[in-house]
Amino acid sequence: MSVTHPAGFVAAGAAIGLKSNGNPDLALVVNEGPRFDSASVFTANRCKANPVLWSEQVVKDGTVRAVVLNSGGANCYTGPDGFVTTHRVAEEVGSVLGFGAVDVVVCSTGLIGLANDRQRLIDGVHTVHGLLSADGGNAAAEAIMTTDSVSKQVVVERDGWSIGGMAKGAGMLAPALATMLVVLTTDAVVPAEDLDKALRSATRVSFDRLDSDGCMSTNDTVTVMASGASGVQPALADFTTALVEACTSLAMQLLADAEGADHEIAITTLNAASEEDAMEVGRSVARSNLFKAAVFGKDPNWGRVLASIGTTKAAFDPADLDVAMNDVWVCRNSGPGEDPGLVDLSPRQVTVTIDLKAGDARATVWTNDLTHAYVHENSAYSS
Amino acid sequence: MSVTHPAGFVAAGAAIGLKSNGNPDLALVVNEGPRFDSASVFTANRCKANPVLWSEQVVKDGTVRAVVLNSGGANCYTGPDGFVTTHRVAEEVGSVLGFGAVDVVVCSTGLIGLANDRQRLIDGVHTVHGLLSADGGNAAAEAIMTTDSVSKQVVVERDGWSIGGMAKGAGMLAPALATMLVVLTTDAVVPAEDLDKALRSATRVSFDRLDSDGCMSTNDTVTVMASGASGVQPALADFTTALVEACTSLAMQLLADAEGADHEIAITTLNAASEEDAMEVGRSVARSNLFKAAVFGKDPNWGRVLASIGTTKAAFDPADLDVAMNDVWVCRNSGPGEDPGLVDLSPRQVTVTIDLKAGDARATVWTNDLTHAYVHENSAYSS
Repeated sequence: MSVTHPAGFVAAGAAIGLKSNGNPDLALVVNEGPRFDSASVFTANRCKANPVLWSEQVVKDGTVRAVVLNSGGANCYTGPDGFVTTHRVAEEVGSVLGFGAVDVVVCSTGLIGLANDRQRLIDGVHTVHGLLSADGGNAAAEAIMTTDSVSKQVVVERDGWSIGGMAKGAGMLAPALATMLVVLTTDAVVPAEDLDKALRSATRVSFDRLDSDGCMSTNDTVTVMASGASGVQPALADFTTALVEACTSLAMQLLADAEGADHEIAITTLNAASEEDAMEVGRSVARSNLFKAAVFGKDPNWGRVLASIGTTKAAFDPADLDVAMNDVWVCRNSGPGEDPGLVDLSPRQVTVTIDLKAGDARATVWTNDLTHAYVHENSAYSS
Repeated sequence: MSVTHPAGFVAAGAAIGLKSNGNPDLALVVNEGPRFDSASVFTANRCKANPVLWSEQVVKDGTVRAVVLNSGGANCYTGPDGFVTTHRVAEEVGSVLGFGAVDVVVCSTGLIGLANDRQRLIDGVHTVHGLLSADGGNAAAEAIMTTDSVSKQVVVERDGWSIGGMAKGAGMLAPALATMLVVLTTDAVVPAEDLDKALRSATRVSFDRLDSDGCMSTNDTVTVMASGASGVQPALADFTTALVEACTSLAMQLLADAEGADHEIAITTLNAASEEDAMEVGRSVARSNLFKAAVFGKDPNWGRVLASIGTTKAAFDPADLDVAMNDVWVCRNSGPGEDPGLVDLSPRQVTVTIDLKAGDARATVWTNDLTHAYVHENSAYSS
C-alpha cells in the first residue's frame, strides 16, 4: 500500500483526462495527523517548473498536509499562467479538505512547455477527494506513472512505526527530463527539523547518486510527511536508517525501470581523498557517452573509464589507477591488467570499481548504458 | 598540399603495417627551416597518452623540427614501456634527419590500452623518411585517418606567405575518444613566443568550441611550425587572423565528418554577461543527450534547451530566456513563443540561438546530434 501503509494517511488516484490514453493521471496523498511535520528537497535546476516554484514556498514552515500530483503535463516553462494553474489546484485541495493552500505541495510530470488544462485539474481534485481511502496508496502510485513500466512503491517496517513511499521516473529513459517525484510517509513522531535532517541524509546517498543520463529535471520533488499517528518517537539515527532504506529501494526501482537500458551500472570509487572526490569521479564516468555505449556493446573498455577520470579534479596519480569491471581488475597502474576477456557483460548488472589510492573515502554512483532504445525513445517523445 | 604548401616543409605518409586493413598509418612532417619556431597545445585530460607526455616536454623550448604521427594505435595507458616506444620513434626520426629527438613531436591515434609495435614504427620511420617530398602533404594527411571518411586539409594564402594544415578526428563519432591531431605549418617569420599567442587565440575560438560528445581525448595535440622560408614577417594580428581562419576551417571539417551524426548544430549564446558564461551555457546544451536526441528526431524541443541552461552558473533570469531554433523564436520569456511547427529540422545544419539578456558577450559552440549510428559505432569499436 506504499504511502498509505503508515497510520494517518489516505490517498487516491484517478483518470481525469490529462493523458490522451485515458490512464490514471491525478493522485492525492493526505496526512490526517495528528501531526503534520514535513520536509522536502527539490531539483537544483535553476529553470524550475511552476509546481516547484510553488511548493518550495509551501514547505518552508515545515508543515505539509497534502501532496497532489498529476501526470500528463509538467506545467514547466508555461509562464505566470501556469503558476496560476498550480496555485488554483492547491487552493482546491485545501478547500475540499478544510485547510489552507499553503499546506499543499503540488507536483506535475509529463511534457514541458505545454499548459495543463486547469479546469480538468480543478474538477479532478473533487474526483480524487471522493476516492480517498486508507487503501489508496496503490492507485496513487499508478496515477503518477508516465513512461514508467511499473509503479514504484516501498514499505519499511519498524517496531510500532513504519515508512511508506512511492516514486515515478524511468531511470535513464528520461523523456521530459526524467522527472522524479517521490512521496514518503511515516506514522512515527518526527519533528520537522529532524525530518529535514533525515531526508537530506537519505537523498544524499540514494537519489543524488542516481545519474542515469546527466540531464537534470525541472520538476524533481521529494516530500516526506510524518503523521505521528503511531505515537512512537524513534531515535533520529534509527529513523534516518529506515529512511535511507526506503529511499535506496525506490532509487533502485527507478534504475531498474530504465526501459531503454540494457544494463544497470554501479560505479564504486574506492580510496578517494574525500567523498566529494569519489562522487566527482563516479559521476564523470556515469556521464561518459563513450563508456556507456561500450557497456551496451558488452565491451569492457577500461580506457574510456580512465579518460573520464582524467577530466576530474580529484586527487590521484594518473599513472597509478586501478579499474575493475565485474570484479576483474582489467586495469592496473593505469595500464593493462587482467584479461578483459574474463569480463562477462551479458548480465544486466554491471559493477565498475575504481581505486584512486589517495585516501579512504568511497561512494557509489548508479547509471545505465547508452542504447539504441534510449536514442529512439528520446528522439520520438514529443513529435 | 596542406602542410607542404608553405615553403620550407616536406612530408610523407606510408602504410607500415600498424593498421590491420593495410591503410597508410605513419606520417612525417619536417620543417627544413631556415627557422624552427613552434607552438603547441595538448589535451587537458590528466590521464594523458605517452606521446603527449613526451611531446609536452619537447615543445617547451619553442623549437620543433619534425612531427611524426601514427594511426593504428594510440599508445595510451600502456605504461613506461609505451613511453619507451614513443621516445625510440623520436630518436629514430632525429637520427635519420640529423637533429636531436628533443625537437621531434610524436602523435599517436587509434585504440587505447594496447601497445604499438615498436619495431614496425622504427622501421617505418625509415620508410617515410625515404618518401619525404614537397608534395607529400596529401599523403601525410591520409596516413593519420582512423574512422575519418575524408582527410582534412586547409591552405590559407596571404601576400607572400601562407599557412597549411591537416587534421584527423571524426567529430562526434569519437571512437578511442575522438583523438584530434592537428599539424599546422607556415613559411611566415613568426617568433615562437608570437606563434604561441596566435595559436592559443586560434584554438580558443575553433577547436575548443567543438564539443561533439563531451568526451575529452587522451591524445589531442595541435602543433604549428614556422619555417620563415618566405622571409616575410607579418604583423602578429594579421598572422593570428589567418591562423584563426585555418583552424576554423579544420574544426568545421571535423564537425562535418561525424559519420554517425545527422546534424551539425551551432549553439550561439547572445547577450551573456561574459564570454565564459556564453561558453558554459553553450557547452551545457551541447552535452545534453536529451536535446541532442531530440534534434536527431527533428523535434525542436526548446524545453530541453532551457533545462540545460538551468544547470549552469551563468548570469540570467530563469523566467526571461529566449531561444530560437533555425531563427524561429520558439521560446520567449521562458515560455512558448513562435510555433515550433515552423522549424524545419530536415537540413543537416541546425542553429540554436539563446538570448540570456544579461550583457553583451557571445560565443558559439558546435556539436552533433545523438543518433543510433553514434551508439552503434561506439559500442562496436573495440569488440
